[in-house]
Amino acid sequence: MTTSSIPGYRLGDTTLPKSPLTKDDLATLKTTLLFGDADVAALRQAHGVVEDQVEAILDVWYGFVGSTPHLLAYFSDAKTHQPLDAYLDAVRKRFGQWILDTCRADYDEAWLAWQDEIGRRHHRSGKNRTDGVSAAPHIPMRYVLALAVPISVTMKPFLAKKGHASAEVEAMHAAWSKAVLLQAILWSRPYAREGDF
Amino acid sequence: MTTSSIPGYRLGDTTLPKSPLTKDDLATLKTTLLFGDADVAALRQAHGVVEDQVEAILDVWYGFVGSTPHLLAYFSDAKTHQPLDAYLDAVRKRFGQWILDTCRADYDEAWLAWQDEIGRRHHRSGKNRTDGVSAAPHIPMRYVLALAVPISVTMKPFLAKKGHASAEVEAMHAAWSKAVLLQAILWSRPYAREGDF
Ligand code: HEM
Ligand code: HEM
Repeated sequence: MTTSSIPGYRLGDTTLPKSPLTKDDLATLKTTLLFGDADVAALRQAHGVVEDQVEAILDVWYGFVGSTPHLLAYFSDAKTHQPLDAYLDAVRKRFGQWILDTCRADYDEAWLAWQDEIGRRHHRSGKNRTDGVSAAPHIPMRYVLALAVPISVTMKPFLAKKGHASAEVEAMHAAWSKAVLLQAILWSRPYAREGDF
Repeated sequence: MTTSSIPGYRLGDTTLPKSPLTKDDLATLKTTLLFGDADVAALRQAHGVVEDQVEAILDVWYGFVGSTPHLLAYFSDAKTHQPLDAYLDAVRKRFGQWILDTCRADYDEAWLAWQDEIGRRHHRSGKNRTDGVSAAPHIPMRYVLALAVPISVTMKPFLAKKGHASAEVEAMHAAWSKAVLLQAILWSRPYAREGDF
């Protein structure tokens, strides 16, 4: 893994601010989501399935965002409204890495701190800084949460592509869907009023 | 339908504050969630399937909340931490009605205003008022969003119980899951900082 060569990628960077969430907070959140050890195992299995399909998966997701004007706006210049190709490309590299990270997350403090940072990067408090761009300054919380659906639904055919039994594909897909929503929820923290998250 | 006989039920009550969301805002949110006309139709079909199963569904959900201490806490007295049976019962009646409402929602202004009110009822700005109780004053946003998973997953067997083809059950279940997340997202509005939702 050459993650250090991806500009702006900071999972494991010990200089990131700590997440205000404790490991106990994360545990109760996982319980609420029915996210358990079987899901962790299914995600590990999914890693091997999607590892060589990352670019094809990103093509689908970027296709969706690129063809949905109210979403493409957040990758576009705040003034000219032109899509910023360099920004789209820079984020795409980290997005690909995130697919693999989601499959093998270990849910420790470094992972929690990184989720908090990804939240800020969607929120007005941190968007555009990593890539030094002048794009739209803030992605509304409702879209961040709602995009969990396409990011989940579209994964199923990729998980089914390596000949696993249908029950295994279902298990990997359910685990993936929960892991995506779990992260989107963690990313919504900077959006919530003090004490409300 | 004798919804008027359910204390605290206010879908269609024209004295509710208007939702700040426009119909266009709702349309782009639905697009982001891949929620379309086929989902609306599948939910209408689900209505007939679950209509006579509402109490059994509520038994499952109340069983989950009742056996999960960090969730039961929000139905419990803020000081004594004892579950408030009258509160649980009062909410259960509206929750049953909500299942049917979710299947036949028409997504108009009255529906949007009611979503906003349900959001406030989970948030510190409106919790406990409807039933005049002294329960824990606020449900954290992360749990409201996360509970969308159990509320979705547990619905599948009920949707499968009336002998529909597996593809129809899948379609009803996908539509149900999106409709639940859509509403949980709308309910998170009062939690978001000004301008962030
Ligand atoms: C579940 C929903 C979402 C997932 C899983 C997701 C995933 C990601 C990931 C992995 C990154 C890269 C983080 C990094 O390493 O820097 C990212 C950044 C970004 N995403 Fe999302 N995202 C979601 C929602 C959205 C939505 C709704 C939009 C709206 C178009 C969006 C637009 C962006 C943008 C513009 C960036 C770059 C932010 C920056 O300036 O650093 N994302 N997203
Ligand atoms: C997707 C997630 C959720 C759904 C679909 C849901 C559904 C509902 C519904 C339909 C009502 C009745 C609204 C009304 O007519 O007054 C309600 C109220 C309530 N829910 Fe939830 N809920 C969710 C998350 C949660 C969570 C995580 C908790 C934590 C235990 C919770 C606890 C309550 C309580 C205590 C009330 C009564 C609030 C009041 O004082 O008015 N809900 N919920």
